[in-house]
Amino acid sequence: MTTPSKLALVPFVSVDNMMKLVNKIGPAQMIVEIADYIEADFKRWKQFDKTPRIAAHSEEGVIELMPTSDGESYGFKYVNGHPANMARGFQTVTAFGVLARVDNGYPVLLSEMTILTALRTAATSALVAKYLAPKGSKTMAMIGNGAQCEFQALAFQTVVGIDTVRLFDIDREATAKAAKNLATTGLNVISCNSPEEAVAGAQIITTCTADKQYATILTDNMVGAGVHINAIGGDCPGKTELHRDILLRSDIFVEYPPQTRVEGEIQQLDDDHPVTELWRVMTGQAEGRRDAQQITLFDSVGFATEDFSALRYVRDQLANHDTFVELDMLADPDDPRDLFGMVARAAS
Amino acid sequence: MTTPSKLALVPFVSVDNMMKLVNKIGPAQMIVEIADYIEADFKRWKQFDKTPRIAAHSEEGVIELMPTSDGESYGFKYVNGHPANMARGFQTVTAFGVLARVDNGYPVLLSEMTILTALRTAATSALVAKYLAPKGSKTMAMIGNGAQCEFQALAFQTVVGIDTVRLFDIDREATAKAAKNLATTGLNVISCNSPEEAVAGAQIITTCTADKQYATILTDNMVGAGVHINAIGGDCPGKTELHRDILLRSDIFVEYPPQTRVEGEIQQLDDDHPVTELWRVMTGQAEGRRDAQQITLFDSVGFATEDFSALRYVRDQLANHDTFVELDMLADPDDPRDLFGMVARAAS
Repeated sequence: MTTPSKLALVPFVSVDNMMKLVNKIGPAQMIVEIADYIEADFKRWKQFDKTPRIAAHSEEGVIELMPTSDGESYGFKYVNGHPANMARGFQTVTAFGVLARVDNGYPVLLSEMTILTALRTAATSALVAKYLAPKGSKTMAMIGNGAQCEFQALAFQTVVGIDTVRLFDIDREATAKAAKNLATTGLNVISCNSPEEAVAGAQIITTCTADKQYATILTDNMVGAGVHINAIGGDCPGKTELHRDILLRSDIFVEYPPQTRVEGEIQQLDDDHPVTELWRVMTGQAEGRRDAQQITLFDSVGFATEDFSALRYVRDQLANHDTFVELDMLADPDDPRDLFGMVARAAS
Repeated sequence: MTTPSKLALVPFVSVDNMMKLVNKIGPAQMIVEIADYIEADFKRWKQFDKTPRIAAHSEEGVIELMPTSDGESYGFKYVNGHPANMARGFQTVTAFGVLARVDNGYPVLLSEMTILTALRTAATSALVAKYLAPKGSKTMAMIGNGAQCEFQALAFQTVVGIDTVRLFDIDREATAKAAKNLATTGLNVISCNSPEEAVAGAQIITTCTADKQYATILTDNMVGAGVHINAIGGDCPGKTELHRDILLRSDIFVEYPPQTRVEGEIQQLDDDHPVTELWRVMTGQAEGRRDAQQITLFDSVGFATEDFSALRYVRDQLANHDTFVELDMLADPDDPRDLFGMVARAAS
């Protein structure tokens, strides 16, 4: 058996290696760097082939493929969302992704994306808040203290400059877990007994819950003037977190309208309700926050370009970090027409 | 660093292990067994979520995702098609695929599919010919002797019972390669100097060329009454192999009309030109071959359920064959909410 040529090998970043990479770079630093890649890609929005993700819904959850391409590289993520998983000892969201060359179709990276999705989601939220949150925001309420919570807190501390997080979850153990994990970050961490208590004095409200249903995590009276809402959890048809009245008082910012109108908080609104695309804010073609009284809402659902940016970032890191193995994933016969002969010769 | 639990590990079948599996089972036997899985899945067609594949086209080729689900398992294939690749020393088509559990979204198999696609394409062609080719067909013309050629020949020998293949390719080296690989199969292999010579006396004509353009591999005068045409290569918008007049004389059978009308030979016909779905033939709801004079045409483009069947087959083999390794592809914190803590603890 001859060793396959380099052409047939795809670098693979396992969960173990992703954790090594995160810890080598440092989670906060890695979030900052991923945010830079995401911002750079939003700024060249028109170069991307964009399509709403392809979702396979079932009673238990959803499995999605999220492809995009900038004409040079092609990327996609496989991701599931199963709200009942946690109670059964599984992750609500797991993911992996692939980056490939457009010119020959060969994959150049296979990576775990459960951890990477948490990092890119937090990076995106904080990046967007840099444009939309009130100047000098110091306090963030975090409603929902699950797997995504600490990544968000760290991202907002590093990218936006908050110094205080006010945690609430209907599961007190989730809050205790988050508080413990955040104890050494330098953040002032306050565990609250109600969502109302959590939002008190916060300039930024992050909602990040996992129920697959229309929920009302925030009611209208909880949202004061001037607040920035970072709504993460409403990301599926039939799954929202905010009362409709909040949406009507807010200026709404979205990643990719054709996807957000189906999956985001704005599925509660008319199809022509005005929204602003983030890439237009980041390129200066649209206004972000106008004044101190305005309520801004990032209706986050997660878009394929963000995963593409994160995969691109990870691939670039592999030049400096030995956090991958090479997988024999592609057939590479000496004569590319001789696939059959390659298999036959392997028998001897 | 603690070892991840079984939940976090995904069996991976590399190219090397796929070749081992093929050679353990035997390529002809494996094609027969995959054909059985494909037939079983066509017979329960209505259980599947079906969607045309999601294609990203570029000047050089196409990258596609092909997802489907039967409600219990979810599968998808990543596949590229780059006609210019061969001249550059790359495979025209490379592929890999994933099978996952619908109930929790966790992948249960990652497999190379370059070899597996060749096997499943040949298995599908032969399975379809079992229903459509003239009774007692003994001779197949094979126009296009690239990577798919020998798999097709073997499949038709084993599943349909042909004893003779008549090879033609514009590249004589491709024909020589195929003839050499088929020398020990027991097939009578005849290398021909023209497509006209290749089709002489053949009851079955297989076209399997790779040009990404409207081509006329078969002209109308080359196709006599009673022939079955197995048209493999017309599988992309703008890529066909048969003259339109042949289509008008044929009864046309397809996998999934919404995909075939865009990608197959029938992109040359009106959108309402009658076609018969294969699942209806296999379940007895539609007629296959009616008489000895009829020209039958399988307008093959390759559909997601066939990949699903092949992945399902490979997964089932792993119980008996040690041809896989386990990849640490999914994050599996002890507490599923504590993804951040898992990463942090990995640092120490």
